[in-house]
Amino acid sequence: MLVMMFTLYLITQLTPAYSSVLPLQYSNQVYSDLNRSARDITTNCGPNDIPPVNRVNTTDRLKELREEMIMSNLDAYIVPLDEEMRLEWISGFSGSNGQAAVTLTEARLWTDGRYFVQAADQLDCNWYLMKMDEGVPEIQVWLSDVFSGANKSIVVGADPVLAGAGEWLDWENVLKKEDIQLMKSKNLIDNIWTAENGRPPPAAKEIVVHDVLWAGESWTSKVERLRTKLGEEKRFGMILTELDEIAWLFNLRGEGSSNLEGLFNSPLFESMAVVTLDEIILWVHLEKVSDEVKGALNSADCGSTSTCVNILDIENSLETLSNWTLNLDPDSKILVSSPSSYLSGVNFAVYSILPEQNRDMSESPVLNMKSIKNKVEEDGMMNAHVKDALALCEWASRIEKDIQDSRYNWTEISAATLLEEFRRSQEDSRGLSFTTISGFGSNGAIIHYSPSPQTDKNIDSSNLYLVDSGGQYLDGTTDVTRTFHYGTPSQEQIERYTDVLRGAIQLALSRLPENTVDTGIDLVTRQYLFRKGLNYNHGTGHGIGAYLKVHEGPTLINLKGKKSSGLKPGMFFSDEPGYYKTGEYGIRLETILKVVPMDLDNEDYGRFIIFEPVTLVPFEPKLINFSALSSEEISWLNNYNQLIRQHVASRFERDGKIEALDWVQSRTEHIDV
Amino acid sequence: MLVMMFTLYLITQLTPAYSSVLPLQYSNQVYSDLNRSARDITTNCGPNDIPPVNRVNTTDRLKELREEMIMSNLDAYIVPLDEEMRLEWISGFSGSNGQAAVTLTEARLWTDGRYFVQAADQLDCNWYLMKMDEGVPEIQVWLSDVFSGANKSIVVGADPVLAGAGEWLDWENVLKKEDIQLMKSKNLIDNIWTAENGRPPPAAKEIVVHDVLWAGESWTSKVERLRTKLGEEKRFGMILTELDEIAWLFNLRGEGSSNLEGLFNSPLFESMAVVTLDEIILWVHLEKVSDEVKGALNSADCGSTSTCVNILDIENSLETLSNWTLNLDPDSKILVSSPSSYLSGVNFAVYSILPEQNRDMSESPVLNMKSIKNKVEEDGMMNAHVKDALALCEWASRIEKDIQDSRYNWTEISAATLLEEFRRSQEDSRGLSFTTISGFGSNGAIIHYSPSPQTDKNIDSSNLYLVDSGGQYLDGTTDVTRTFHYGTPSQEQIERYTDVLRGAIQLALSRLPENTVDTGIDLVTRQYLFRKGLNYNHGTGHGIGAYLKVHEGPTLINLKGKKSSGLKPGMFFSDEPGYYKTGEYGIRLETILKVVPMDLDNEDYGRFIIFEPVTLVPFEPKLINFSALSSEEISWLNNYNQLIRQHVASRFERDGKIEALDWVQSRTEHIDV
Repeated sequence: MLVMMFTLYLITQLTPAYSSVLPLQYSNQVYSDLNRSARDITTNCGPNDIPPVNRVNTTDRLKELREEMIMSNLDAYIVPLDEEMRLEWISGFSGSNGQAAVTLTEARLWTDGRYFVQAADQLDCNWYLMKMDEGVPEIQVWLSDVFSGANKSIVVGADPVLAGAGEWLDWENVLKKEDIQLMKSKNLIDNIWTAENGRPPPAAKEIVVHDVLWAGESWTSKVERLRTKLGEEKRFGMILTELDEIAWLFNLRGEGSSNLEGLFNSPLFESMAVVTLDEIILWVHLEKVSDEVKGALNSADCGSTSTCVNILDIENSLETLSNWTLNLDPDSKILVSSPSSYLSGVNFAVYSILPEQNRDMSESPVLNMKSIKNKVEEDGMMNAHVKDALALCEWASRIEKDIQDSRYNWTEISAATLLEEFRRSQEDSRGLSFTTISGFGSNGAIIHYSPSPQTDKNIDSSNLYLVDSGGQYLDGTTDVTRTFHYGTPSQEQIERYTDVLRGAIQLALSRLPENTVDTGIDLVTRQYLFRKGLNYNHGTGHGIGAYLKVHEGPTLINLKGKKSSGLKPGMFFSDEPGYYKTGEYGIRLETILKVVPMDLDNEDYGRFIIFEPVTLVPFEPKLINFSALSSEEISWLNNYNQLIRQHVASRFERDGKIEALDWVQSRTEHIDV
Repeated sequence: MLVMMFTLYLITQLTPAYSSVLPLQYSNQVYSDLNRSARDITTNCGPNDIPPVNRVNTTDRLKELREEMIMSNLDAYIVPLDEEMRLEWISGFSGSNGQAAVTLTEARLWTDGRYFVQAADQLDCNWYLMKMDEGVPEIQVWLSDVFSGANKSIVVGADPVLAGAGEWLDWENVLKKEDIQLMKSKNLIDNIWTAENGRPPPAAKEIVVHDVLWAGESWTSKVERLRTKLGEEKRFGMILTELDEIAWLFNLRGEGSSNLEGLFNSPLFESMAVVTLDEIILWVHLEKVSDEVKGALNSADCGSTSTCVNILDIENSLETLSNWTLNLDPDSKILVSSPSSYLSGVNFAVYSILPEQNRDMSESPVLNMKSIKNKVEEDGMMNAHVKDALALCEWASRIEKDIQDSRYNWTEISAATLLEEFRRSQEDSRGLSFTTISGFGSNGAIIHYSPSPQTDKNIDSSNLYLVDSGGQYLDGTTDVTRTFHYGTPSQEQIERYTDVLRGAIQLALSRLPENTVDTGIDLVTRQYLFRKGLNYNHGTGHGIGAYLKVHEGPTLINLKGKKSSGLKPGMFFSDEPGYYKTGEYGIRLETILKVVPMDLDNEDYGRFIIFEPVTLVPFEPKLINFSALSSEEISWLNNYNQLIRQHVASRFERDGKIEALDWVQSRTEHIDV
């Protein structure tokens, strides 16, 4: 699953306290056209236009919101993207990057170029679209401008729980230059969007113990390591607001359904936690905590030990956290998370509860601890990838055979559904790790595509078929992309697939000093495309969790990334170059790599790392121009194919799955140099 | 000439106003050993040690400095590295990176690992050595610590002309936490180091017009472009404090000798300038300005035009600048340079003269304008490199022949001297662009080596010989490194030379999107060394001026660089990977590349750039394992050799220089794949 070059998926913490910092920074350009808007798009709001079918009528909703604003004495209200999809409800817009500002007279929605068409469809004529890639002002700049020189004092409201502290402080700084006050407000959408008018009922995940058999380290040992790190940096404690950090630290996972979008495909649960040198508090939905969990967390008696977890109710977490801060020594530094590659950091509500003298907004030490997998997690990740490869290869052989023999008409959606079934039938499956990207032909060129009934294409032998998918398993999380062709590919497609494959192999072949920064290796995979003046408009790789999130920090392989982090043994990340020809086809090849130490006679030049492939799904020989590969690249491919035969083909053979076996074997034959 | 990985050469502006920011940042680590010191080194200060011959007795000098400090009510005085070598005079230490703090009882000198041995030799027992690579506190932290809890108010003095504004503000921030005042002080060393006790007499360079025949653009056109840029960014003007920016902008150069170290090998002159939308002022040594220069600058009558230059005396530049600021509109933003890859930015004296409301410390627009060479400069650079190759190749053939035929015993120093003669005999030569690095055998492994009588080695056929050198010509600046062997190299040496060469070729072969950041391509040259767990401890490349400085910003190809800048057509930079085996030998291959646009049928994926070699000196075939090269690499090498034959060999042929011709031809023969 790919990481966008400009807009990172900031699926964020979901505490009491879930927030969503939109990466609006890149629109921090010269203000160009305040009024470039959805209304200019003729399909939308012209006098003779027929409104698109998927347009939502927001007239009443905006009217109610403005009444709420007036009652709260707010001149404007900011609605960020959030996990409960309030932004979609108020605006109609359902993209994964967006942010709205509503004044008493205007409603504007910011999103990026991937969503201009979709937003123009979905927004009704109450809304202006602010096209972020095209130099429009950031939301706070626009608000400043709108209210500049007002003859009364202006107040802008926002829910501090939904805004990252870094983001909030940015807004505040800009607004105060025009004497505009940014005020913490309760969520006004919650006042008007209720069960009565169709809001889905709350649903929270069950919390279960993630056995140390899978986790590889007890939570008490993790807490001890965390406390050592905190102590080394002269901190008294930290507030954990990232859900995957909490799940990892306490060896807990969420199961069942949730009404928070970010939890659909990840085993997280709503929570917040505090860990200090002598105390642990975990806020969760109390009714979701079993006796087993309480037992595992030593919650029965916290009088006598510092490794027991006080479990508190997340419903009033801000109040209990606030009370907790009253007993803090003024000199005690408490860490709260700064923004990182995929996360927006602590939300402003929590940030501002912590007294200023205690506040220390820094990188969470858990971010790095979690990224380095222990031996049990490593083995689990590899095992999960074997199971995932079994599902994917059997599925691929079925689809191919059905299409080539005209046994069945598969579409993007039905094929993705079958793939999900195959994954779910694997041992310890916990569903998908993200919504499958299943794109045939020109749909494969839409980087951020997932099929809908309106766009669903038949899969046939005339073009390339791109599938980016992954699963959650008790022992690990997977993420793999392969590109197929069921007929005769064009010479150009073969050339491009070969360029992309060679780039992927070059990254896998790299040997680097330990701690080389991830941003620095991005160009390795692009070099063969670059030779031809080609490129792909997304990052090259992302870290991945162990039965956690599919995009896990800090690793983000993208030269344009704002932060760099060092690569260390025990990390897992994706290697996923691509090539997209708009309107024609897309190619992406994604393989998870594991970082392992290089065996060296001496370390005169420091320690080095190498990468081992973990994903075990073959590439497509008919799409490879083998004569273009270097002997080193062919040798890598032969070794990789050997691995696949050993772990995947052997299982098909044992289980008598002849079609799948044939499919794998025909794609993993030894290539002579 | 190479750029160090850790310590950039911050040869800085030299205004009234020359400053030197030492890159002490990287020692910003946990304070480890306050007293790790030169005194611990037994050759220095033990009771039975014989003092090294190059040690300077600083007892009287320190005594006088402390008397000055007492008279100025200073508790400590900071002495940075500077162009007039005051640091060397007070401490005895002559390295290119250093900084001293003197209190009434202690004297400490900070430097980095390259200079620990040298400093231990040169510092006498009045001094403590602060080893920067080993976690010692930064100078301001050490001072804070020394005076922490003092029962009187403490004042630390420093000359604001010698400190970058960024650096000064850092010092101030740290010191004020302990209520220590940082005070602008006149230079106390100047009070005690005078002509009477051996200070060299002042010497300033003559200022000459750099003809538009070389510069390719009139200074008025450059000023017009600069004014447009300033206007676009809503600035009223800027203060130029970087000498190469001033020389470039006004098409002027410095000739003759100087007593400022940074001017020894660069055609700069002491100056400062102001350019606003309606005015230009240039501060220089008035007696060095000829009528020709005044004419070229339209200095006669500045009443009627905004493209005339008011020439003022640099001796009282701070006063006249200060007066000039009195007429500034409070809303007029005046840019002063922030630190950049090789420069420390505006000094604190100038920074603090500018009223706060006018002050805008940002990247100088001239930095980028200057880095993109125009057509005339491009042609000049290429022509200078042809001449430079003629000198270097003829010299190389002579040295080789003499050694192989035992005609003459060359040493590192005598060979470097001969090379300088050959360069100076070229048309429009203006001497060297830096002190030649001439290192035989183990001396070649000392990255920052230049031979001295104590270290001078005979050059023979037993080992590798590394020469990094360059020249100044009216039409351009050169910088080239080649590594030679006059006997039979070892297999290991051939392997390593081949690894380094392949890395250099890979960078030269790269094709990249325009504006790809320079930091991102650093690993390209290291990949073959990395495969073997090897590396080199310096950057891969630097920008280079056109008859200006040999290290020119913003380009700095180093993944560990703190700033990135985009590569654009018209830039020139060095491609200089290496390999160093301590105590045995060093290899470095440095070739200047020019950035040119790639020819593309369409720009669907943006504009791309490629690199063309400008240096024209052959590599050494007996050090290359051709069977390890890819066909692409061999093809690059064949093209390169063809270029050398065309531009260099043809000239030797014409001039009947048979030995040189043979030398070049034998090294540029066509290689069959």
